[in-house]
Amino acid sequence: MTNPVLVEVTRGPLVESRHRGAVAVCDAQGKTAVALGDVAVPIFPRSAVKALQALPLIEQGAADRFSLSEEELALACASHSGEAAHVAGVERMLAKAGLAPSDLRCGAHWPIAQSAAAGVARSGAPSPLHNNCSGKHAGFLCVARAIGADPADYWRPEHPVQRLVRGVLEDFTGASLGEACCAIDGCSVPTWAVPLHKLAHGFAKFGAGHGISGERARSVVRLRRACAKAPWFVAGTGRFCTEIMQLFGDRVFVKTGAEGVYCAALPREGLGIAVKCDDGGGRAAQAMIAAVIARFLPLGASERAALERFVAPVQRNWNGFEVGQMRVTEALR
Amino acid sequence: MTNPVLVEVTRGPLVESRHRGAVAVCDAQGKTAVALGDVAVPIFPRSAVKALQALPLIEQGAADRFSLSEEELALACASHSGEAAHVAGVERMLAKAGLAPSDLRCGAHWPIAQSAAAGVARSGAPSPLHNNCSGKHAGFLCVARAIGADPADYWRPEHPVQRLVRGVLEDFTGASLGEACCAIDGCSVPTWAVPLHKLAHGFAKFGAGHGISGERARSVVRLRRACAKAPWFVAGTGRFCTEIMQLFGDRVFVKTGAEGVYCAALPREGLGIAVKCDDGGGRAAQAMIAAVIARFLPLGASERAALERFVAPVQRNWNGFEVGQMRVTEALR
Repeated sequence: MTNPVLVEVTRGPLVESRHRGAVAVCDAQGKTAVALGDVAVPIFPRSAVKALQALPLIEQGAADRFSLSEEELALACASHSGEAAHVAGVERMLAKAGLAPSDLRCGAHWPIAQSAAAGVARSGAPSPLHNNCSGKHAGFLCVARAIGADPADYWRPEHPVQRLVRGVLEDFTGASLGEACCAIDGCSVPTWAVPLHKLAHGFAKFGAGHGISGERARSVVRLRRACAKAPWFVAGTGRFCTEIMQLFGDRVFVKTGAEGVYCAALPREGLGIAVKCDDGGGRAAQAMIAAVIARFLPLGASERAALERFVAPVQRNWNGFEVGQMRVTEALR
Repeated sequence: MTNPVLVEVTRGPLVESRHRGAVAVCDAQGKTAVALGDVAVPIFPRSAVKALQALPLIEQGAADRFSLSEEELALACASHSGEAAHVAGVERMLAKAGLAPSDLRCGAHWPIAQSAAAGVARSGAPSPLHNNCSGKHAGFLCVARAIGADPADYWRPEHPVQRLVRGVLEDFTGASLGEACCAIDGCSVPTWAVPLHKLAHGFAKFGAGHGISGERARSVVRLRRACAKAPWFVAGTGRFCTEIMQLFGDRVFVKTGAEGVYCAALPREGLGIAVKCDDGGGRAAQAMIAAVIARFLPLGASERAALERFVAPVQRNWNGFEVGQMRVTEALR
């Protein structure tokens, strides 16, 4: 199956580049509202399921035991930009559980935020704290502590923490997750491939609190509220997930993943959304998810205008001249 | 026409992302050796034609008048990484023509090389000298000086320098370049869309020196020799264009352009190559051009192994773990 072109990037009078992809929108009963392209083939959601990966933090009592704040819970769901307050928050999480930055096994990379990277360059080199996944890893370490497991190998598929995570993913998506769909993520934890329509179904359940146990539903509400109250900690300054959740509060939960993935929940509409850009292009996946949110979320005029900046962003060059536009195709409007 | 999938990126047991694209290989008579996908639709070559954009520098006498070295000629053809010797070279070019960094109109961005960016962060902020196109712009300014044109607006389509560039592009590609295929590049100069097979034809002529005037052919030889002798100045440390030209010397000329483009010439085989990744993905375009070079260039065993690293690069995560592979599909083997 050839997925449709969903995003075009123009330059002057011509289309310069094209992105194909697939989009699934489901309700909490699994009923399909939109299925564009192949939504049945398993795709790696990568960081787009970090909120599901963070759920054991609440369910296993770690959030209470270590008195994690809403900002810290948001960090556990984050692909953060490595700005100073992100790094400080992760350090706090680790300290609360009696752990240290040296316990992180996510690897180091330069902060996503250019300003933060420049700051790190002035004083030294990046550490695992600057890795966009360090909050998730700090969360895993807190869970390991709370359940009395050895924190050393918390990232391995067979570790109790990752088994808990896998159980959560299976419960939400209804997918059976075995070796045939398991790979290693950028930060070394397992990533499990799940069909797009099952991811959308899972995020509908995540938003609506239906189709899961009452206790799990309460944990989800707590996690969603933390992200809605502290969206800067889920991504960072100027980033899409942060700006959308700042704009819409608890009306939208949205999270990006590497290689062109976004998952979202519209709790009031009872809908879940999952998109994957075939070629892994993040810029296209962002326009795709923005267009789907614009289609299903009731919007005021100023909200629609704010969202349109992401659906059809103007492309500018190094001098700030307008050189073209990114735009979603008719299929997504 | 739907272009074929030419590159797959795997993660663990599955293909995570797919890149479609088109490939043209032609000889200097315009005879097609390979035509994969739509090679007739105009595409923006962007920086992949910088060597053609640099030709007036020699033809108008600027290179001789300002005693430009081979390194400086290579810089005029470069998308450089903004490392210290790149920046120093561009400053030298400007000084030789009695101009200053403030005459550059390419805009500023952080150096492509992470180490250079960190260095700039420690001492200040990036300037137009760090823009990967600053050598090309310095070349344009030298041409403006040599022909007695006002350097102020050297980047505008109607400026004598850009008219000369457009004439060179038309001569090599045989395309007629008007407003309908003109857009603004990242560094603000015009970029002209040309069908892929005409770009391949143009680079066959560039490599073979056929189908152009004798004087032009001599200028091309001088420019190709400069790039072959100083390939580090065409890109930078660890970059594809640099490593390929270090490996093969004057047997391969290759140059990348933004949004998934590469152009190359194999002078001894009399072939020109042009590739475009549909979605603008540079990683895929690199695997594509590496595969085409591997197919048409006679290779020793160690050369084949060196090239294979680019045809099928192992994908590693932040901890250095192997997580997958990029690979070209059967169509390109």
